[in-house]
Amino acid sequence: MKNKGFINLGFVKLDVEREKRKGLPEIIYAPGKTIEQLKKIIREFKKHTNLVFISRLENKQFKILKKEHKGLEFFESARLAFFGKKNKERNGYCLVITAGTSDIPVAEEAAIFLELMGNNVERIYDVGVAGVHRLEPFRKKIRQAKVVIVIAGMEAALLSIISGICPAPIIGVPTSVGYGASFGGITALLGMLNSCAPGSVCVNIDNGLGAGYFAHLINK
Amino acid sequence: MKNKGFINLGFVKLDVEREKRKGLPEIIYAPGKTIEQLKKIIREFKKHTNLVFISRLENKQFKILKKEHKGLEFFESARLAFFGKKNKERNGYCLVITAGTSDIPVAEEAAIFLELMGNNVERIYDVGVAGVHRLEPFRKKIRQAKVVIVIAGMEAALLSIISGICPAPIIGVPTSVGYGASFGGITALLGMLNSCAPGSVCVNIDNGLGAGYFAHLINK
Amino acid sequence: MKNKGFINLGFVKLDVEREKRKGLPEIIYAPGKTIEQLKKIIREFKKHTNLVFISRLENKQFKILKKEHKGLEFFESARLAFFGKKNKERNGYCLVITAGTSDIPVAEEAAIFLELMGNNVERIYDVGVAGVHRLEPFRKKIRQAKVVIVIAGMEAALLSIISGICPAPIIGVPTSVGYGASFGGITALLGMLNSCAPGSVCVNIDNGLGAGYFAHLINK
Amino acid sequence: MKNKGFINLGFVKLDVEREKRKGLPEIIYAPGKTIEQLKKIIREFKKHTNLVFISRLENKQFKILKKEHKGLEFFESARLAFFGKKNKERNGYCLVITAGTSDIPVAEEAAIFLELMGNNVERIYDVGVAGVHRLEPFRKKIRQAKVVIVIAGMEAALLSIISGICPAPIIGVPTSVGYGASFGGITALLGMLNSCAPGSVCVNIDNGLGAGYFAHLINK
Amino acid sequence: MKNKGFINLGFVKLDVEREKRKGLPEIIYAPGKTIEQLKKIIREFKKHTNLVFISRLENKQFKILKKEHKGLEFFESARLAFFGKKNKERNGYCLVITAGTSDIPVAEEAAIFLELMGNNVERIYDVGVAGVHRLEPFRKKIRQAKVVIVIAGMEAALLSIISGICPAPIIGVPTSVGYGASFGGITALLGMLNSCAPGSVCVNIDNGLGAGYFAHLINK
Amino acid sequence: MKNKGFINLGFVKLDVEREKRKGLPEIIYAPGKTIEQLKKIIREFKKHTNLVFISRLENKQFKILKKEHKGLEFFESARLAFFGKKNKERNGYCLVITAGTSDIPVAEEAAIFLELMGNNVERIYDVGVAGVHRLEPFRKKIRQAKVVIVIAGMEAALLSIISGICPAPIIGVPTSVGYGASFGGITALLGMLNSCAPGSVCVNIDNGLGAGYFAHLINK
Amino acid sequence: MKNKGFINLGFVKLDVEREKRKGLPEIIYAPGKTIEQLKKIIREFKKHTNLVFISRLENKQFKILKKEHKGLEFFESARLAFFGKKNKERNGYCLVITAGTSDIPVAEEAAIFLELMGNNVERIYDVGVAGVHRLEPFRKKIRQAKVVIVIAGMEAALLSIISGICPAPIIGVPTSVGYGASFGGITALLGMLNSCAPGSVCVNIDNGLGAGYFAHLINK
Amino acid sequence: MKNKGFINLGFVKLDVEREKRKGLPEIIYAPGKTIEQLKKIIREFKKHTNLVFISRLENKQFKILKKEHKGLEFFESARLAFFGKKNKERNGYCLVITAGTSDIPVAEEAAIFLELMGNNVERIYDVGVAGVHRLEPFRKKIRQAKVVIVIAGMEAALLSIISGICPAPIIGVPTSVGYGASFGGITALLGMLNSCAPGSVCVNIDNGLGAGYFAHLINK
Repeated sequence: MKNKGFINLGFVKLDVEREKRKGLPEIIYAPGKTIEQLKKIIREFKKHTNLVFISRLENKQFKILKKEHKGLEFFESARLAFFGKKNKERNGYCLVITAGTSDIPVAEEAAIFLELMGNNVERIYDVGVAGVHRLEPFRKKIRQAKVVIVIAGMEAALLSIISGICPAPIIGVPTSVGYGASFGGITALLGMLNSCAPGSVCVNIDNGLGAGYFAHLINK
Repeated sequence: MKNKGFINLGFVKLDVEREKRKGLPEIIYAPGKTIEQLKKIIREFKKHTNLVFISRLENKQFKILKKEHKGLEFFESARLAFFGKKNKERNGYCLVITAGTSDIPVAEEAAIFLELMGNNVERIYDVGVAGVHRLEPFRKKIRQAKVVIVIAGMEAALLSIISGICPAPIIGVPTSVGYGASFGGITALLGMLNSCAPGSVCVNIDNGLGAGYFAHLINK
Repeated sequence: MKNKGFINLGFVKLDVEREKRKGLPEIIYAPGKTIEQLKKIIREFKKHTNLVFISRLENKQFKILKKEHKGLEFFESARLAFFGKKNKERNGYCLVITAGTSDIPVAEEAAIFLELMGNNVERIYDVGVAGVHRLEPFRKKIRQAKVVIVIAGMEAALLSIISGICPAPIIGVPTSVGYGASFGGITALLGMLNSCAPGSVCVNIDNGLGAGYFAHLINK
Repeated sequence: MKNKGFINLGFVKLDVEREKRKGLPEIIYAPGKTIEQLKKIIREFKKHTNLVFISRLENKQFKILKKEHKGLEFFESARLAFFGKKNKERNGYCLVITAGTSDIPVAEEAAIFLELMGNNVERIYDVGVAGVHRLEPFRKKIRQAKVVIVIAGMEAALLSIISGICPAPIIGVPTSVGYGASFGGITALLGMLNSCAPGSVCVNIDNGLGAGYFAHLINK
Repeated sequence: MKNKGFINLGFVKLDVEREKRKGLPEIIYAPGKTIEQLKKIIREFKKHTNLVFISRLENKQFKILKKEHKGLEFFESARLAFFGKKNKERNGYCLVITAGTSDIPVAEEAAIFLELMGNNVERIYDVGVAGVHRLEPFRKKIRQAKVVIVIAGMEAALLSIISGICPAPIIGVPTSVGYGASFGGITALLGMLNSCAPGSVCVNIDNGLGAGYFAHLINK
Repeated sequence: MKNKGFINLGFVKLDVEREKRKGLPEIIYAPGKTIEQLKKIIREFKKHTNLVFISRLENKQFKILKKEHKGLEFFESARLAFFGKKNKERNGYCLVITAGTSDIPVAEEAAIFLELMGNNVERIYDVGVAGVHRLEPFRKKIRQAKVVIVIAGMEAALLSIISGICPAPIIGVPTSVGYGASFGGITALLGMLNSCAPGSVCVNIDNGLGAGYFAHLINK
Repeated sequence: MKNKGFINLGFVKLDVEREKRKGLPEIIYAPGKTIEQLKKIIREFKKHTNLVFISRLENKQFKILKKEHKGLEFFESARLAFFGKKNKERNGYCLVITAGTSDIPVAEEAAIFLELMGNNVERIYDVGVAGVHRLEPFRKKIRQAKVVIVIAGMEAALLSIISGICPAPIIGVPTSVGYGASFGGITALLGMLNSCAPGSVCVNIDNGLGAGYFAHLINK
Repeated sequence: MKNKGFINLGFVKLDVEREKRKGLPEIIYAPGKTIEQLKKIIREFKKHTNLVFISRLENKQFKILKKEHKGLEFFESARLAFFGKKNKERNGYCLVITAGTSDIPVAEEAAIFLELMGNNVERIYDVGVAGVHRLEPFRKKIRQAKVVIVIAGMEAALLSIISGICPAPIIGVPTSVGYGASFGGITALLGMLNSCAPGSVCVNIDNGLGAGYFAHLINK
């Protein structure tokens, strides 16, 4: 069953050398997998790595998995499950900013992943541009971050504002927050891709984990 | 917890100086907020303003909030909750027109907001262009309005008709009423943006509140 | 070279039985054909039919074809060339209405085709809804038409207006007139497809000929 | 409450002169209307017309309305309710053709409306182009129709085939039948709008009623 | 040739009562009109109104028209021609703001129209959010405007920023400035429609004139 | 009821000569058909063919059909029901590859159909390009296949990788696996259509059956 | 400069083992390459392969290349240049069918490539479904082909028709022929992807070469 | 003319404190600016910064500017002009990879900007996945980079491949290279946003400069 660099369970080929290649282990994406498949994957993974992540896990799925895997921790707001040893040792901090309150679940996916990977994380939530003065007290915190994640739906203008005042690399996460012509996050995505302020990049809609992962690579 | 111009509750930064800056208080957008978050926000807001609006609130959410906040009023057709003192003192009137019966909930969001902010409101509902003669008896009322809100789905031709006969500024609200190639309001939105009759503008699909807010600024 | 019901020139298979099947001969669509191909097609067609139409022909193409085919007539505003005998004998009239002046070339493609096929045609140009009162003097003419073609760009609201007052079948032709979010006629097309007034149908953007052809079938 | 040409119930303006203007009465579109609104509309309509149509009505809505309005008939496959006297007197027939079995509900909306309005209707169902020989036995029926309605989802190629062999005017109804890149009927709609065979037009996705209405105008 | 409320030149129906109905005369849209058509329209208009506007006129068109109509003035940056008497008498001012230098032609279309209609206009150009501190010295000017027009391409975040600090009604004009995923102004348009800051509306892409017209109605 | 080449049940025209024409019998597409319709179709089909396929059947539908048709087999993972005699006799094998675990249901639709039609099938599941080394042990199996089906969602890069190393014809099936800007499979579809590696084609989103059918034609 | 399996010219890495891996050599895609780059690539390729293809080459580019590479042949209608020895030895034939005359250039790209690779090719041009009887005399030729390529723009219904009567695998090539809502080939592409007749697949818009390549793999 | 943090030239507000805030000076975007505007901007900038960048400059614009500003250097392949002192002092290197030869201009925009800002740059061009073995000799170079920029059009699968084997942060730049359903870079953009391999982000289509800027921030 052991091939070069992966474990073949038939329905899945576990990439157990991901950590060696990429510096981080494979992250299990829960949607579209049965509970039996998840169980088998975790069992196998635990033989090969000290660190298991499961993303977009639902609470009821977690409860079943928990029975077998006692050490599994679940961060419900981030839909993220984790098995392993947290690591706190880096200097500097990653900053996670949201435009609104509804963007927080996506933000927590990024923030908790970053913390579990041993990064210091600062959070500034609900400082969207409808009241841009709310950024003022945080200006120093923004300017001193090593990397910044900006999470926003609707027109996502917050990315450009942060990008205009912050020297660190900035990762935009468009969210599906909004209605009508927000088109499930397309407007926020397009807005971030077209930011007039240089120094920012973008990930997929609602992809908090991808932004956290990338921020970790920069902060490493 | 008090910063310059806002209250920091962590998950939310209440913009308590919005009224000073914009002439209207912040409006709480309910979707994506938990009932606990809504409770905390209202409690805090009541310390700083005499006027609280909650938009897109569901009936069952209102019933829970009502227990703590006795003075909270709910306009179910408009999904709008309100706390404070109504104000009736302006001259002139805002006119709210719909093309169909199905557009009325969006219209009421605009109309009730305008009334709560102290504007006189006139309503003309279900006068879409399939029977344009239905506009005839209202021609004088249309021509004498201070500002007009036109609410229509499908092809939204009513905006252009009103715009052709009315000297006041006209705000179009495309609605998601329709099926097939109405694409959830995109057709109505595009139709309104391309109106051949000058003197009109447009807000997001189903955004009755935004139109009411803007009409209030004009009527002020 | 003669097969069952068509002439095989290799690069083209002339459908010489179209007239028998459909009541109208094949119409030659000029774009994408070389001048040599057009020449050969016309030569061959003239052996089999008394009626040749070439659509979307450019003036300079016409001038070359004219040298060989003296009887060819060209209607430049409609980009339509014609060879044969015009026919005037039907009762009733087809009505062609445009919203603006820029829609006239598309309208002429429909109108001239209809006339060449022996229909009476009435034209009302530039009566878009920005000034809907301009329709008033034509109300009787609209109501008595056998079939109506409405040609409009931008939001194309004129279709719904006409459809609301006219008992005849109405064919909408969206045009690419407009800019920005008119998206080359998509907005007009969607508007016409979603007309709230029953009794209308739609053809492709700028397809005046298709509307004329269909009107002819109704008026037959 | 009686205005010029309509009845004003506030939430609705009944267009009681539609029949005089258009030759057909207003058709009540059920979606987005409450059961109370439907009741009031029917009550009022019955004072002014002998013919009431309600489209896109659900079965459970019908059962409630039936209690008050005994004479109301319901055609469940067509989601169409009807009150009045059927009329059978015209010559010729309208032909309703579907590409597949799943297109039948949309077809029945057209066919039943046509029958109620006094047209003879012929039906040919499930003759899509995957087996185009299935059209053969119906060739004569197709060629002798006064007007044809073609109802198809997916790529909707049937419209072009029928259009190539039939001299009557042809109305295409794209349906939302399909999956993946059929995009809820957009592919069928675009296919019909771009038909290479002249003599056809198109209505909105799933709009069987609109096609029936238009066919009635032609057959009149 | 004189009908009720318009002049019928065949290819155009001049709406000479527009001024009476709407408070402003009809504006001639040049694209799609021949130079001969423009000449005839101007000649006729001058008999009925003291104020003629021609929008989106090209320089070479203007030069030809100028020969016959000596009084015609041309504002090349705004592509706007004008004939008549300017009017300066209103209190307050309209403020026109652009995000970038490339947005200026659209801004001038709004600004010059407003000036010609007798409004005071202030301009603040190139203050996009990449350097939001550039707004600081203009804060008072922004807060005291009667109405504000914000013109921006790319992600158009400037609208939300202005909307957050300004109590006046704000009209957004998305521009086609940008590249790649700006999609010719669609991104800016969507961003403006989804602004998280209340108090703004939107017109079509690059429609400076429409914004100017609407601002004039508010400032009236 | 027997026509030339099909059975006419009214609501359906069974194409009983499909097998003669195409080499494979008609496949019954379950969605949009009632259980009564399915029953009648199967009954009739069994008189004319030894092979009945029903695609996209739900488990509960199968259970009802099974009561009447004892020999019906159901492959739940592939949503495919089958009645007839399996056939195993061909040389070579078809290879079915998925990028992820969530793509397996679509893959099984292809694989089981191929097996029932008498093809040898090899499966390689979950070898997406995030860990492209997982392909290494299968390189020989990939290079020796007669035809390959690649099934992938998200960005669907696996198709291009396989296409770069495999001399056989390759059929891509984009899946709706993904979130946000995967747009229900559009991104995967576009990616496959634009593959830079020659030798591949594409079917509709999630159309495993279509790919299996086509692979069978090649392997024949 | 020689690496494992490719030649590194810096701006290009020639894949000289493509033939070994895929059975066909790399095809040089001309657009976006300078004439100097093309010269260098051909020079280098000729050292390693007996077969050089250049696709989408313009006539004037060919003339320059011809000076240095005397043996280069150019098929202008197919925009395809070729250097090497043609090969004629296979049994069976590939059939290339177009719906219209304007689709021929795309068809020739497929047909000439197939011929150069040693396949027999039959062509049937201009048999679109507007006159489907034109297919009749070719029915036997269609049914006996080893593989069929169908090339069509507009609604591309021809693919489904051919697919309904032909037992061979069918490759659809949507073309950008059409106007208005054909959207540069999107409609044809969607139509082909949603074909109701099984047994067909699809390549990118106007990608005649890709279809020829794939047909060659099947016919091999 | 000097305000807080910027120079006001009316048509432009030069952000002379950008370098202090962001670590890099403002980059002048040439499109949409007249040559006179560019001259004035450069003149003014040179008073305040030692580093001037002009992006997307055309060769003929450069030649005019060069007359006044002798020190201006122009990198034509990157459309980038530069004035100032290059800086070479950082450890590590940024790696710029393209899928094809046509992607090189976008790559050079990134690479030259990085070099001018004092970064070591390595280039690997034309290693797209059609021949993924071409990556082999560069595996070490890829794994040791500090940051990687991947530039690809069409389906842009290269990003995922690189992302699967490289531990550094990876920035994707979709390009408009391709035809048909590549939709001017949309397919590449969507592919990159949906990459199944973690560790990558994305910028706007053809935005080489934005990627270079962001890479510089990471490498700093």
